[in-house]
Amino acid sequence: MTRERLTLYDTTLRDGAQTTGVDFSLTDKRHIAALLDGLGIDTIEGGYPGANPLDTEFFAKKPTFRHARFAAFGMTKRAGRSAANDPGLMSLLDADSDAITFVAKAWDYHVRVALGCSLEENLASLTESVATAVTRGRETAVDCEHFFDGFKANPDYALACARAAHAAGARWVVLCDTNGGTLPHEIGRIVAEAAKVVPGTHLGIHAHNDTDNAVANSLAAVLAGARHIQGTLNGLGERCGNANLVSLIPTLLLKPAFAERFEIGVPLENLASLTKISHTLDELLNRSPDRHAPYVGASAFATKAGIHASAVMKEPQTYEHVAPESVGNKRRLLVSDQAGKSNILAELERIGVRLEKSDDRIVRLLDEVKQKESLGYAYEGADASFELLARRILGQVPDYFEVERFRVDVERRHNAQGDLVSVSEAIVKVRVDGEVLISAAEGEGPVNALDLALRKDLGKYQRYIEDLELVDYRVRIFQGGTDAVTRVLIEFRDAKGESWSTVGVSANIIDASFQALADAITYKLLKSGAA
Amino acid sequence: MTRERLTLYDTTLRDGAQTTGVDFSLTDKRHIAALLDGLGIDTIEGGYPGANPLDTEFFAKKPTFRHARFAAFGMTKRAGRSAANDPGLMSLLDADSDAITFVAKAWDYHVRVALGCSLEENLASLTESVATAVTRGRETAVDCEHFFDGFKANPDYALACARAAHAAGARWVVLCDTNGGTLPHEIGRIVAEAAKVVPGTHLGIHAHNDTDNAVANSLAAVLAGARHIQGTLNGLGERCGNANLVSLIPTLLLKPAFAERFEIGVPLENLASLTKISHTLDELLNRSPDRHAPYVGASAFATKAGIHASAVMKEPQTYEHVAPESVGNKRRLLVSDQAGKSNILAELERIGVRLEKSDDRIVRLLDEVKQKESLGYAYEGADASFELLARRILGQVPDYFEVERFRVDVERRHNAQGDLVSVSEAIVKVRVDGEVLISAAEGEGPVNALDLALRKDLGKYQRYIEDLELVDYRVRIFQGGTDAVTRVLIEFRDAKGESWSTVGVSANIIDASFQALADAITYKLLKSGAA
Repeated sequence: MTRERLTLYDTTLRDGAQTTGVDFSLTDKRHIAALLDGLGIDTIEGGYPGANPLDTEFFAKKPTFRHARFAAFGMTKRAGRSAANDPGLMSLLDADSDAITFVAKAWDYHVRVALGCSLEENLASLTESVATAVTRGRETAVDCEHFFDGFKANPDYALACARAAHAAGARWVVLCDTNGGTLPHEIGRIVAEAAKVVPGTHLGIHAHNDTDNAVANSLAAVLAGARHIQGTLNGLGERCGNANLVSLIPTLLLKPAFAERFEIGVPLENLASLTKISHTLDELLNRSPDRHAPYVGASAFATKAGIHASAVMKEPQTYEHVAPESVGNKRRLLVSDQAGKSNILAELERIGVRLEKSDDRIVRLLDEVKQKESLGYAYEGADASFELLARRILGQVPDYFEVERFRVDVERRHNAQGDLVSVSEAIVKVRVDGEVLISAAEGEGPVNALDLALRKDLGKYQRYIEDLELVDYRVRIFQGGTDAVTRVLIEFRDAKGESWSTVGVSANIIDASFQALADAITYKLLKSGAA
Repeated sequence: MTRERLTLYDTTLRDGAQTTGVDFSLTDKRHIAALLDGLGIDTIEGGYPGANPLDTEFFAKKPTFRHARFAAFGMTKRAGRSAANDPGLMSLLDADSDAITFVAKAWDYHVRVALGCSLEENLASLTESVATAVTRGRETAVDCEHFFDGFKANPDYALACARAAHAAGARWVVLCDTNGGTLPHEIGRIVAEAAKVVPGTHLGIHAHNDTDNAVANSLAAVLAGARHIQGTLNGLGERCGNANLVSLIPTLLLKPAFAERFEIGVPLENLASLTKISHTLDELLNRSPDRHAPYVGASAFATKAGIHASAVMKEPQTYEHVAPESVGNKRRLLVSDQAGKSNILAELERIGVRLEKSDDRIVRLLDEVKQKESLGYAYEGADASFELLARRILGQVPDYFEVERFRVDVERRHNAQGDLVSVSEAIVKVRVDGEVLISAAEGEGPVNALDLALRKDLGKYQRYIEDLELVDYRVRIFQGGTDAVTRVLIEFRDAKGESWSTVGVSANIIDASFQALADAITYKLLKSGAA
């Protein structure tokens, strides 16, 4: 059976840039565009050239793609002037892009109130703008803004906009649920109506997540005939976000209901990079990845309950809707307060420790984990601290060093030039193999100073820790107020590129940080077979 | 037109307890149950009595509800023994609940492999368990585990399980998408098939979010005939979570497609408490609320783009799919790098500053905000710091105090008893009205010590800040490594219950914290009209 082609159109760099808390730099935009092209997205909307300096600069030099088309977004010409006399339209046409996506109002109310022009003038602007872009050789799309609300209010006018866009030569007529309030069964019904005036092979969907249905709305539109889906990585976008391409792509590729009928530009072999791409975007944005995200979240294939865990290990494929590896994710059996023996055994096996199920030390480890978690420790994100805890109970962790004392000072004062400056310094006194070593260091802040002082001289172990680099430092506060407990997660990396995470918990952020630092160093010494 | 009744069944305390990183205490469970009852949920599943000490204790004393029924969850009796001889079943029946929900396997493969019994034995266990619970006077539901995957593999057996549950007297036969992989159009088709053997008025849906469709799947099931929806607050639950009741309830109450056909136990007037309930759960779990959450997220009704902002202010109802107040949320026009003049003007108006659109100082403020945000400041979560920034540009903020110097020390050492202890102390030197004041304090950690020292003596302003309480302290690190920039958000509250948030940014966490502390105190002095 010949499968029909669905076009994926990414608007992370335009609609996604409207996300609260997101401010892309030029480098971010280039990086994200490269990720999207590498994945196999058909069209990448770069932004709105002329609307702000960043987008104008991004369009000044078109990125080189292996696969994707590069689209510029902008408004149709204003009513009452010709296309050639509209500077906004001209700067859009002059931008270096393969494709142009116009936004045009399709709700009669908005045309009258927001544009202040007649319904006919709006259609004429749309027609003339599309025709001009097509004449300039651009693949042209029209985002019919408020299409679904417009259809509910005045179906004839909404459909007239769609028809005009198609008639003027637009490759895609994209039906936008701009306010995000339309439900999946309504999307299906209205797209089917639209498909009577514009062929489905020219219809697209642009959904927002205001009712938690953006993905379902996109799928409903495809089932009703649309063949172009707009969305963003990780569902970025204004308010509650756009349809999440990271959720849609695996569904389109892996679920028979879609994969048997449709094909997309993302080849199946690229799907295994999806988890990494999703997390890379979060890293660029300095956001913690959503661990519950469909397909790519750290918990998407995690089992916490003890009873389930033993069954999952036996027959994973009947407990997982898709194979975690197919999207570059992995199965996790969680060590946690609810963990049964099966989870602990599985975790121990993963770190290379084989124990009999009847071994008493498993119960001791389980009790220890529960007790630590009740204090605020979280081993789910601190593999190295979990391994140290387990191996300590098994008597496998030498006391490489003992911390006798540390002190960290931060002072803010006027320097000789009269400027306010801060100085952070730390002193750490450790005992290594009977030898007492005192080191001091200055740092960018108290944790940096402590880290540098602790790693300055560990005597005979020093050579094992020369190549360490602190790559992540995260803080969580529990309960309100400064009396609260602080949890610090630290990630280190060594020269071989291996990385590991540790956790520290205390009412005092410095103590919590120090615990995590000391665990990270101990872990490295253990892994290096230091003696 | 008579509307049909939909039953809402909450499993936050059972399936939600499987969420990675969630560990409810007994107090949490009681608190959450009270929130659910107050909202108007029909049935609250409390947990699995007998499976763990916490749930057993929770069921030892049934909570008093104004509205809701209290349900216990557990397994059907084991094959090969009678109901009376199954201790698991007996402890479930002995638990103090109004209703019992049995989980029973409906996928032939799992019956054979995981239960290791015959298909007939499984049906017999189901029938006998339900009949026993019904005889004991309990409203009984059966969660048909893996119903949809089971239906795809062996429709006759899946339907036989549903039919047996109904025939034995179960009030609800709940179709579970246990692995979460079923898509909305499949749910619709399969629920319609099930409705041929069990009346829809006895059918329920239990959806998971593994394809990002849990809400859509629940709605599709209702449209196909089901009249009972299971879900959780904030979509808690194993892996990617369960259907989010916080998204479903407003849709059922506010969207005509559902509100005109169905009624639910949550009265419309309770809907305005939804945002608060959702955020309260996050607080109990020490999670940051998802600002992009449908209906209740801080950004759900936020507009960032400059052009849109002016239109939204004019005609909000045509830019918002529901009124933010209806769910207890509010409209926000964001001050941010993308902000146009309209947003800034709206924010200024909100804090009581009226300026002409042509006022030069608006451009200066916009530039200042952009410049600060490029350094890592975020005013979206720090209203008080934004107000100070704006009023400083307008020359409305007196220099109440000037910090000459501060110093904070954290020392970890052995005390006289030989125990390792940490001591944090701070010294702050400020100049108030020409007078130099030096204060010192010890604290639980460095930030607490600094906070106490700074607020110890501000001379003539001291009386205005006596009632301050630090209620939240959050830290974000940007870029990897300790060289990274730290952003601190602090929230203070005063005796009147008013609270305000401030932000500080620096490479040094202590400096960033101090900035936010100083802003918080300045804000309080400004609000108090201190002079």
